[in-house]
Formats: sequence, C-alpha cells, structure tokens
Amino acid sequence: MADGVLAELAAALPAGSVLTEPAGTAAYRRDEASFCPSGAPLAVLRPTTTEQVQRAMRIATAHRVPVVPQGARTGLSGAANAVDGGLVLALTRMDGILEIDPADQVAVVEPGVVNAVLSRAVAAKGLYYPPDPSSWEMSTIGGNIATNAGGLCCVKYGVTGDFVRGLEVVTASGEVLRTGRRTAKGVAGYDLTRLLVGSEGTLGVITRATLALRPAPEAALTVAAVFGSPADALGAASRIMTAGLRPSLLEFLDSVTVRAIQDYRDMGLPEGAQALLLAQSDRGPRAAEDVTAIGRICAEAGALDVAEASDAAEASMLMEARRLVNAAIERLGATLIDDVAVPRARLVDLVEGIGAIAAEHRVRVSCPGHVGDGNMHPTVIFDRGDPAAVERAERAFGAIMQLGLSLGGTITGEHGVGVLKRDWLAKEIGPLGTRLHRDIKAAFDPLGILNPGKVLA
Amino acid sequence: MADGVLAELAAALPAGSVLTEPAGTAAYRRDEASFCPSGAPLAVLRPTTTEQVQRAMRIATAHRVPVVPQGARTGLSGAANAVDGGLVLALTRMDGILEIDPADQVAVVEPGVVNAVLSRAVAAKGLYYPPDPSSWEMSTIGGNIATNAGGLCCVKYGVTGDFVRGLEVVTASGEVLRTGRRTAKGVAGYDLTRLLVGSEGTLGVITRATLALRPAPEAALTVAAVFGSPADALGAASRIMTAGLRPSLLEFLDSVTVRAIQDYRDMGLPEGAQALLLAQSDRGPRAAEDVTAIGRICAEAGALDVAEASDAAEASMLMEARRLVNAAIERLGATLIDDVAVPRARLVDLVEGIGAIAAEHRVRVSCPGHVGDGNMHPTVIFDRGDPAAVERAERAFGAIMQLGLSLGGTITGEHGVGVLKRDWLAKEIGPLGTRLHRDIKAAFDPLGILNPGKVLA
Ligand SMILES: Cc1cc2nc3c(=O)[nH]c(=O)nc-3n(C[C@H](O)[C@H](O)[C@H](O)COP(=O)(O)OP(=O)(O)OC[C@H]3O[C@@H](n4cnc5c(N)ncnc54)[C@H](O)[C@@H]3O)c2cc1C
Ligand SMILES: Cc1cc2nc3c(=O)[nH]c(=O)nc-3n(C[C@H](O)[C@H](O)[C@H](O)COP(=O)(O)OP(=O)(O)OC[C@H]3O[C@@H](n4cnc5c(N)ncnc54)[C@H](O)[C@@H]3O)c2cc1C
Repeated sequence: MADGVLAELAAALPAGSVLTEPAGTAAYRRDEASFCPSGAPLAVLRPTTTEQVQRAMRIATAHRVPVVPQGARTGLSGAANAVDGGLVLALTRMDGILEIDPADQVAVVEPGVVNAVLSRAVAAKGLYYPPDPSSWEMSTIGGNIATNAGGLCCVKYGVTGDFVRGLEVVTASGEVLRTGRRTAKGVAGYDLTRLLVGSEGTLGVITRATLALRPAPEAALTVAAVFGSPADALGAASRIMTAGLRPSLLEFLDSVTVRAIQDYRDMGLPEGAQALLLAQSDRGPRAAEDVTAIGRICAEAGALDVAEASDAAEASMLMEARRLVNAAIERLGATLIDDVAVPRARLVDLVEGIGAIAAEHRVRVSCPGHVGDGNMHPTVIFDRGDPAAVERAERAFGAIMQLGLSLGGTITGEHGVGVLKRDWLAKEIGPLGTRLHRDIKAAFDPLGILNPGKVLA
Repeated sequence: MADGVLAELAAALPAGSVLTEPAGTAAYRRDEASFCPSGAPLAVLRPTTTEQVQRAMRIATAHRVPVVPQGARTGLSGAANAVDGGLVLALTRMDGILEIDPADQVAVVEPGVVNAVLSRAVAAKGLYYPPDPSSWEMSTIGGNIATNAGGLCCVKYGVTGDFVRGLEVVTASGEVLRTGRRTAKGVAGYDLTRLLVGSEGTLGVITRATLALRPAPEAALTVAAVFGSPADALGAASRIMTAGLRPSLLEFLDSVTVRAIQDYRDMGLPEGAQALLLAQSDRGPRAAEDVTAIGRICAEAGALDVAEASDAAEASMLMEARRLVNAAIERLGATLIDDVAVPRARLVDLVEGIGAIAAEHRVRVSCPGHVGDGNMHPTVIFDRGDPAAVERAERAFGAIMQLGLSLGGTITGEHGVGVLKRDWLAKEIGPLGTRLHRDIKAAFDPLGILNPGKVLA
C-alpha cells in the first residue's frame, strides 16, 4: 500500500516536494518537546499551493494514511511529531505575505511565513502584529495559529487567536473551508475560526490566514526590579495589574533562571537576586509615568533595587536577557518545560508549591513566567542519562500541573496539549468536554487521519 | 403529552416558575425583530438556579420538547422567538453578580444580569466592562454572549466574545459543561467557549459566565463633523483609521437618520446635513490631540463643519442623539434593520449601492453605522399595512445583504442570524461550512431540541 500512496503523491505533486529518503525526512520527525514519541514518516510533503495540499489530503483520505501538519517544529508539546508510516505535511514553503492593507489593518498570509518576517514587513508599513512568542525568529504563523501561541506582549495585546480574523483550511477530505472574514466584526454562524485556532493540526490544515493588525506602538520604556524573595516579586506583579496599570510586558525570573542566564552570558543581572521583575510600558509620553508607578509599587512590595533603563541599549540588554532564558536553562540539563497559568492572586501559592514539589521529587525547577498573565513556565531540569532522575522529573512535571489545576488554573497557557499533556487534558475538561472534543474532531475528520494521537488519545 | 410535561415541570421547579396562562406567556413570544415567525409556547419557565435549568432540560429531552433560551428579548433576528408547543426558558431571574475581582480583573455573573447593571457595578470598583450594545439598559449578558453583541466602543475595545473567559452551560440533555477558564491565557483543547459565544441558544443554555474586565478608561473627548455627502464622511472615517488613530467611538449617521433624530427631539443637529460623523477618544491627556487630528482629517476630507464638544454636556448631547437612532427611525414606519459589515475601503460602495437599491425597490433606507468597524445598519422603512410595500422592503433587505457579500463583507456584524437571516447564512458560509455547523449542532444537541429553526433551518 505504501508504494501505491507514494506513487500517487509523486504523480500529484511537483518534483522535489515529496521526500522519502530517511536522510531527508529525519529532520522532520520531531519538535522541541522532550519525551514525546515520534515515528518514522512514510514521506515528507512540501507543498507550495493550497491545491497541492488538497491533492495530498485526498490521497491520504483515500488510503487512510495519517497526516501531520507541520510548521517550524519549535512546538513544545510533541504536537508536530511524525507518526509511523504517516505523512508529514511541511507548510514552510508556503510562506508568502500576500497582502498588508493599512486601510483595513489586516494582513493576508500563507501559513509558512515566519512570525518575525511578517512582523518586520508589517512594521515597515507603520503597523504592528503583536503576537510575539519567544520563538518568533523561527516559528511560523501557521504553527502560531494552530497552537494559539502567546508571547511577551500578550499581557497587553492578547494572544495569536485575538488577531486571527479568518482562515482558509484544507479539511481531511481535501475540501477547502473558508471561515471568518476580513472585517473586524461578524457573527454569521458558529465561530469556526476560533475553533480552528489552537486545534494543533487535528481539525484541518491552515493554508491561508487573514490577520488583524494594529497601529505601530510607541517606543517602550523598561524597568527592572530585584527582590529578596519570589513572593515579594509575585506580590508586586499582582499589585501592578490590580492598580490598573497596563504594562506592555511583565516578566518574572526566579533565582535559578537569573543565575543560569548570568552563567550563560554576562548580562549584568544582579548576583544573588532571589527574583527579578521586568516591565515595560509603551504609552509614549505617558510611559515614564507608568514605569515610575511600577517602580514605586515594586519598592513598596519590598524590592531591593529598582532600576529604570536609562537608554535603549540598557533596555534591550534586559530584553535580551529575557530572551536567553531557554538557551540558558537548557545548558543546565535536560528540561521538561511546563506551562501552567493560574489566577494572579494564586501565583505565590503556585511558586511556593513548586518549591515543595522540587524538594519532594528531588529535582531542580527553574521558574520564569509571563507573570502578568499568571502564566508560568516551571522547567524541570534533570539528567537524561539517569532513569531514576527521569522518572522523578516526569512525576514533578505532573505534580505541577495538578497544582495548577487545584489553584483554579489550566495545564497549558500557551504551549498546547500535543502528546505531552494529552492525558492531562481530560482531567482539565472532564468527561463531557472530552466527549464534545471527540464529536467535533469527528465532524471535521471522520476517519481520524489528521494528526492522530495529538490532543486526544 | 403536553399535560405530562407540564406536570413534570411543575413538580421539578419551584412554585411560580412555570407560566402557562396565555396572558402570562404572551409577553415572552417574540423579540424585537420584524417579520419573524413566533409560536405559542406550551410554557414559560423562569428558573433561578443552574440546577433548575438542568431539571428543565432533562424533562425537555425526555419528551423531546423544544426549548428556546431567552434573555431580555431585545434581539433583532427572531432568535429568541418562541416556537409552537415548546418551552421558553427565560433566564432573567438568574441575574446575580457573583464576583467582581480587581486582582484578576474578572467578573463572574449569572446570565440574566442586565448589561448596564453589570457595567455600573464594575465601574463602581474602578473597572470597565466595555461591550456596550445600544440596548445595554435592557439586554442581558446571557443574550449578549449568545449573540456576541457589539456596540459603540468595539471599534477600540472589541466585542462581547473578546471579554468572555469561561462559561457554565447546561446542555440539551441537562448536563453541566464548564468551558474556558478564569486566567487570561489558556489553550487546553478546542475553544468551546468561543464556539458557544454567538451560538444564539442553539448549542447550550448559558448559566454562568466569567468575564474579563479592564481598568477604567479615562474621560472621553468628542468631536462631530458635518459633511455634504455620505462619501466624504465615509472617506474621512476610513482615513481616520488608516492614520493609526484609535478612536473609542466612530459613528456615522446619514441624512435620513439625522433628520429623523431632529424630528424626534431637537438635539441641535445641523439641518440639511448629508452625513454626520461622531468620534471620541478616551486617551486622557492625549485625547485632545486625537480629536484635533480627527477633526483635521474630517476637514481635509471635505467636512462642512467640525465641532469639538466644548464640555461634557455638549458631548453627552451628541451621544444621546446617537442613542435615539432606533427610536427616531421607528417613528418613520415599520423597519427592517440590516447589519452588514464590509471592509472599510468598500464603505462608499456599500452606501452608494444601498442608494441604488432604495431607488430600485422604491423604499426609504436610513443608514446609521459603526463605521469604524465597517458595520452599517441600513434600515428599510416601509408601510406595514401595504403588502406591496412589505414585499419591496423584504427584497431591498435581501439585496443589501447580497451587496454586502459581494463587497467582501458579512451579512451580520453583530445582530446574528436567528430566523431572519437563516437562509442567507448558507450563502455566506457555503455547503461545507453548513455541513460542519450541522455536525457541531448534533454534537451538542443530538435531538435538536435547543432553539430549533434558529441559525440553521
Ligand atoms: C525557544 C522557544 C521559545 C518559545 N516561546 C514560546 C512563547 O513565548 N509562546 C508560545 O506560545 N510558544 C512558544 N514556544 C513554542 C512554539 O514556538 C509555538 O508553539 C509555535 O507556535 C510553534 O510554531 P511552529 O511553526 O514551530 O509549529 P510546529 O511546532 O511545527 O507545530 C505546532 C502545531 O501546529 C500544527 N501546525 C503547524 N502548522 C500548521 C498548519 N499550517 N495547519 C495546521 N496545523 C499546523 C502542528 O501540527 C502542531 O500541532 C517556544 C518554543 C521554543 C523552542
Ligand atoms: C434598541 C436596540 C438597540 C440594539 N443595539 C445593539 C447593538 O448596538 N449591538 C448589538 O450587537 N445588538 C444590538 N441590539 C440587539 C440585541 O440587543 C442584542 O442582540 C442583545 O445581545 C440581545 O440580548 P437579550 O438579553 O435581549 O437576548 P434575547 O433577545 O432574549 O436573545 C438573543 C439570543 O440569545 C439567546 N440567549 C439569550 N440568553 C441566553 C442564555 N442564557 N443561554 C443561551 N442562549 C441565550 C436566545 O436564545 C437568542 O438566540 C439592539 C436591540 C435593540 C432593540
């Protein structure tokens, strides 16, 4: 059967767009998640048009072959991992920016365009595409939409889904579905656009997106505050939001993370800081008043030191430090990156609980986070070579999700479910939610060929 | 059978919460839409708890009796209209504000709370619930969510759905489904919350909602501009948005509407204005610079007169004029209120096309609109007593939707589909979209008892 499928694909797609040699397909096997199974694909398809995606899906449907849509494979949940004998549908060659319209403030793009490429193109027209996952230099808009990616500025501007107006999607059977619209408002029927956002490639293949843009923001001012305890820093973060300030960025770094960054590259971060808050305001002439207010709240909450970046260089040094988090932590060992989000008032309970979990399971946990949104990335660091350590790490990882749920939070604020958190999803959404998920999945993909085993077991 | 159902309901619900006398149920038969069929309900149920809603739904399921969820019946598409022999589930007694939390900036409410009541309670705590349909003094949050209501401030702040974090919903079978979350971010599974938003009571009964709030806005400044032609005013509106200004309100009134308002009550609107733009900015100390910039753009676009409101009284007079639109137009005759939204660059084509449609079908059409969002409310005015006029009005109404679609727009920006636009929905979303709608409906409501005949035929 495999030969028949490959022959049909070769006939249906242009030369060079069907990779079958293991040497060529190996790179497409997995995303950035640890410990997620991945299989050997039958082939990797690299279409350049919606029509080619349709042909591929028709063949897959005819032969009931699984298909895994894939962007840049920066995902952190194994959602883009290949499955044995299935097809990988790599969308990276469909990377056109078809339109940037200043009147409607929308962009129309293909799914493979890299976030940073689009963001820069939009900025060049005086506009702004806010969603900024830390992976923005690599990850694709298709992947961002399929995971509903967050980022640093969502605390003020919202997540990817808030900027998706309409989609073109190829269904499992190879039909083209158009959802949503170009206009800001529209309520014609159920919101299929939002249903597809965050569906992790299980409901359809995104082949085009209409994205909302905003006017360019003004230059941001930055302030950093050093704390003697995580609780003080988290208390400050919560008070900043409660005070009605609207920072355009509000990030938390715990001591493990601060030290890891300093060890990785000297960014001038204070030695011995037990916690660091980074905040920005981009309200133009009023940004100064905002960062002063943020600094004052930090001081009142017990900050040991508060420093407003005196110039752009200092500010971008601080932001660069934040961006190094993943690289710096990865040097400490293998990592399992968690992604719980809890109500802001429960952040202290979360971080203290994580300390207790780390002690109980004898693992190290670093804890950076988009604290303005209550979204933390507790990262379990362990020795991949030691099976007992691996087991302890996995237990700690689960205990953190359980803690997040018990604090009224969610198991995933932005990284998604994939295979990594598939069993946990059922705990969060319950049996009725799970049943509805299955029925919705069946409506879009009755044969279950689209990204099987992801999100739902 | 009806007697058995009523006996079960009487036993399951508290005294006084089951109305069956026609004198009592008559008021619950229909919403504010013209020309939408409505039936005589078997009973009107007025539950006060989620548990009572569950009991009602279990009985309805057991007997396969249709159920129409209902808020304040201010809807404009017949979506809340009773069906013959069915039950009306009036949610207006479930009107509690359960929580307003300044730390998480969320409110937790029951569905029957009136928008204005919530908005004022939230404002009293220094917070802000932006969605402000013009019906806000009457319509309920449950109805707003079920229709994804818009309003005057969405041009800056977004629509109802943008403020819904999580829902408690009773399904057709009487189970309780909890969707979404309290935190700003979360991507655990498909976005069932957004699927329920705007579903017009066809997928579940909303019994509780967690709503996002914002810090209170600053006082707004207002500017009004008078134009010699609609095209000039629409051109100005488009340029205001393209210039990157972010007005907190941007409304268009055509000459028919301006005259109707002046005839209804002397609001000091200029006689002979061919079009009026109203704009606000709420950027505090920068609002003055915004309204000046808006005024300058209007002048450049050919405004005959531009006036910044010199004080709060003048500003609220202008806003009051805007709020009188519906009442003023209704005095001119029977109305069919349309709700198309088109890309901003096509607004002139829309309004000119509507002029042609009015001429062709010999009807009067007033045309107020949330022009910043491209969302217009062309309102066909006619004589209800003249069958030929009624027919012409209905034809014109359809032609306007057809025009909206042909300009790349949608048949409904905020009022919804209901029964009024049921046949048009299929034109907008196509056969595949329609099939998916039916399958999703079946997943939530396999017996089809929830608001049958609404949205989908
Ligand atoms: C260093 C680093 C930093 C990160 N920072 C963030 C962050 O700040 N915020 C955040 O949210 N995430 C972050 N991530 C996670 C990841 O970058 C995001 O999930 C991103 O959206 C994935 O995009 P991608 O193009 O790499 O998609 P992939 O990883 O290739 O795929 C992700 C999912 O999307 C599906 N998919 C991809 N393209 C399509 C398509 N066209 N149609 C249908 N389905 C499709 C896949 O099937 C898969 O389920 C980070 C990852 C790394 C490695
Ligand atoms: C003068 C006037 C001005 C208006 N201005 C605007 C405007 O600016 N913007 C706008 O968007 N709309 C506007 N509308 C339309 C209308 O007010 C909105 O659609 C509003 O959201 C309806 O709320 P309601 O409580 O009256 O709901 P209803 O009319 O009673 O019901 C509307 C729909 O919601 C469903 N529903 C109600 N409650 C629930 C629940 N708890 N669970 C599940 N389904 C439920 C019903 O089944 C029905 O499908 C206006 C109407 C009038 C009369």
